[in-house]
Amino acid sequence: MDHELDRGRGNAPHGSRIDTYVDRYAARAAGMVASEVRALFAVATRPEVVSLAGGMPYVSALPLEQVGDLVAELVARRGTVALQYGSGQGDPELREQICAVMRLEGIEASADDVVVTVGSQQAIDLITRIFIDPGDVILVEGPSYVGALSTFAAYQARVVHVAMDDHGLIPEALAQTIYALQAAGSRIKFLYTVPTHQNPTGVTLDEGRRIQVLEICRRAGVLVVEDNPYGLLGFDREPMRALRADDPEGVVYVGSFSKTLAPGFRVGWALAPHAIREKLILAMESAVLSHSTFSQLAVAQYLATQPWQEQLKAFRELYRERRDAMLDALEVYMPPGCTWTRPGGGFFVWLTLPEGLHSKAMLPRAIAQRVAFVPGTGFYADGGGAQHVRLSFCYPEPDRIREGVRRLAAVIEQELRMRDTFGTGSTPGRTGVDTPSPDLA
Amino acid sequence: MDHELDRGRGNAPHGSRIDTYVDRYAARAAGMVASEVRALFAVATRPEVVSLAGGMPYVSALPLEQVGDLVAELVARRGTVALQYGSGQGDPELREQICAVMRLEGIEASADDVVVTVGSQQAIDLITRIFIDPGDVILVEGPSYVGALSTFAAYQARVVHVAMDDHGLIPEALAQTIYALQAAGSRIKFLYTVPTHQNPTGVTLDEGRRIQVLEICRRAGVLVVEDNPYGLLGFDREPMRALRADDPEGVVYVGSFSKTLAPGFRVGWALAPHAIREKLILAMESAVLSHSTFSQLAVAQYLATQPWQEQLKAFRELYRERRDAMLDALEVYMPPGCTWTRPGGGFFVWLTLPEGLHSKAMLPRAIAQRVAFVPGTGFYADGGGAQHVRLSFCYPEPDRIREGVRRLAAVIEQELRMRDTFGTGSTPGRTGVDTPSPDLA
Repeated sequence: MDHELDRGRGNAPHGSRIDTYVDRYAARAAGMVASEVRALFAVATRPEVVSLAGGMPYVSALPLEQVGDLVAELVARRGTVALQYGSGQGDPELREQICAVMRLEGIEASADDVVVTVGSQQAIDLITRIFIDPGDVILVEGPSYVGALSTFAAYQARVVHVAMDDHGLIPEALAQTIYALQAAGSRIKFLYTVPTHQNPTGVTLDEGRRIQVLEICRRAGVLVVEDNPYGLLGFDREPMRALRADDPEGVVYVGSFSKTLAPGFRVGWALAPHAIREKLILAMESAVLSHSTFSQLAVAQYLATQPWQEQLKAFRELYRERRDAMLDALEVYMPPGCTWTRPGGGFFVWLTLPEGLHSKAMLPRAIAQRVAFVPGTGFYADGGGAQHVRLSFCYPEPDRIREGVRRLAAVIEQELRMRDTFGTGSTPGRTGVDTPSPDLA
Repeated sequence: MDHELDRGRGNAPHGSRIDTYVDRYAARAAGMVASEVRALFAVATRPEVVSLAGGMPYVSALPLEQVGDLVAELVARRGTVALQYGSGQGDPELREQICAVMRLEGIEASADDVVVTVGSQQAIDLITRIFIDPGDVILVEGPSYVGALSTFAAYQARVVHVAMDDHGLIPEALAQTIYALQAAGSRIKFLYTVPTHQNPTGVTLDEGRRIQVLEICRRAGVLVVEDNPYGLLGFDREPMRALRADDPEGVVYVGSFSKTLAPGFRVGWALAPHAIREKLILAMESAVLSHSTFSQLAVAQYLATQPWQEQLKAFRELYRERRDAMLDALEVYMPPGCTWTRPGGGFFVWLTLPEGLHSKAMLPRAIAQRVAFVPGTGFYADGGGAQHVRLSFCYPEPDRIREGVRRLAAVIEQELRMRDTFGTGSTPGRTGVDTPSPDLA
């Protein structure tokens, strides 16, 4: 053995928690650190805590017996297909069904341009993998979906927030941001947007603005990535027309069955212009070979045999009741100085705290008072969001929502008293991922 | 609208196949091009073609009725868990069961250090994501698993092959390669190895060499990534002791249920030293949030309720019979000048063609003669492999295997006649991915 080779892996004792690989990681892994907030969320799963933190859909509303039966039949009758490898692009029948689902939002597409992914999260990951070199710019709403921000960080993108208001992304702000960035020589690769019942704000982009956003991006040569998990979960009107419906060559559409059926299948998709879709398939294969055929065919079988549009309607009614419970409770309990959005669909309300309060600093005290939320800081890549809180109404029953909001209001009042006594609260440093892991949500 | 913004996306007509995004892709996407070989494999799925190309396990041997029943029970009784988001790390019960499976190879591990992934392919992807900056070196056997090579290319790694022989990786070659690379200032991040019944050669690393390989890597500070999908599919002896069993801090072990149960669930895993496993979980969450709970619990339920070790034994007997059919047929039909490996397990035989023949150039002619294989070029990152062919015996029945080998021998004889008449055949350029997509395998 050549002693020249002896660079060792250090002498950390077996089982030690010292990371002997610390100088070997890729640059992109530098930000992969779990934040202290994660430990708090683990506590927040205790039954006495009302969690307004998570985005878990209420799957108890599904016809579980029927789903069990259709899956059994699938395995018994088509098991040699369902248990085998599938194509990187995804099951052809399912892709046809996905096109039918998207038609509800005005999208005309070929199944050949659809790639089935491991949840919409993977669609975001693969799109980023294809387009982003370190330092490339991705435009996102401010605030934006935390899962996308975490993916963008893993690819070392430079994330730039564009201002939004109660009508969604502000076209003038978008145009100005693009102009300033391009003038400075930045490479803007795409705009990532959740235009309908956005996560975390619940806000929907106006129809008039949709055309403007598409036009601004088309002119500037900026691809639009439209992430639309909540598009069919509107409470007060018919589904909006998707951005993709009006610009097939300029938009990659990202969809999911996690909120309209169940997240446990992890079936999402991307609909992309043909050339991009080719690269998506190859990226998909290098990432996971192919998605679970078993999961894909279970979803396909569900869509083929169950009244899925009726189920969607049931979900909409269920979530509308919960949204109403949350908005009513906010009205009743929240102290002056708090404001919040009034979502027309989806899972979330975005709460703005009075001046001087810090949502992340408040979280441990809230959990001690048996209510959990996600601090707004998780939804900004630039350190913003401290004055905001994401509240979800999808999972707890209405009475629990009211109780949770009541507890939260008490916590905020306590914070206000502290503020008035001691000045503004502490502002914790931002390290790592500020959101619960998926099952602790 | 500001005309300064008008950089346009070009004027390609709607639906055009011209890639208007060609100058927008990330550097890593440059290699994401489907090769011309892919189209051939699509033809190779016709029933008249004997495919010795694919690595599809023979899932028809599974008790499909029972699997259907246990899945139905799972959804009906635990549907609110099975259809919900799971943790990024994976289901705790399944991780315990995975530890029990790994114990068959001498591994003592805590479920806390296991991360469940979307097939072992994703484990390879996430490990690469954590460790590899562009230009970093990954050592691999020559030849090596094509799926891993494709992932390594996507992260712009520099792949360096280390010579192997019928006893696996050659320790002296490994030490010399590491020495030369480190002397030249290259950053070697890990050795990727399939030590047991390797894909594509079927070769197994000797026991004596295992200790040497671990020692060389330990001294040089090179992490070992042990990919072991076929470890429990040995035909002639008890399972080998895994590399991980002898170096818990220096090895990331990658496992899979795709070959021992069924690939349709896409359940694989990584067992990693504690610090790495922490980063793997965060990388997993940014890639897909979490794997399908439905798939994971189906596997867990199968392991808990079915005689899985008996099923493994049935698989081993089935594949042994097919290996024997292939080896016998090679002996009977192959012309002089051909040599091949004699695998003790797994799915593959590695055939070396006579001088002057080119496996990739031969493929279209073979498919015309109704037999398909994977050209050896797919298993090298450096343009090697032209004289080799991967033959799989896992999927076709023994009679079909014999017929396939007979046809292939006839093709080789024809090639030899052409070689003797015209000199060496053409040597096609290497572009894109040289293997079938998973379902066309």
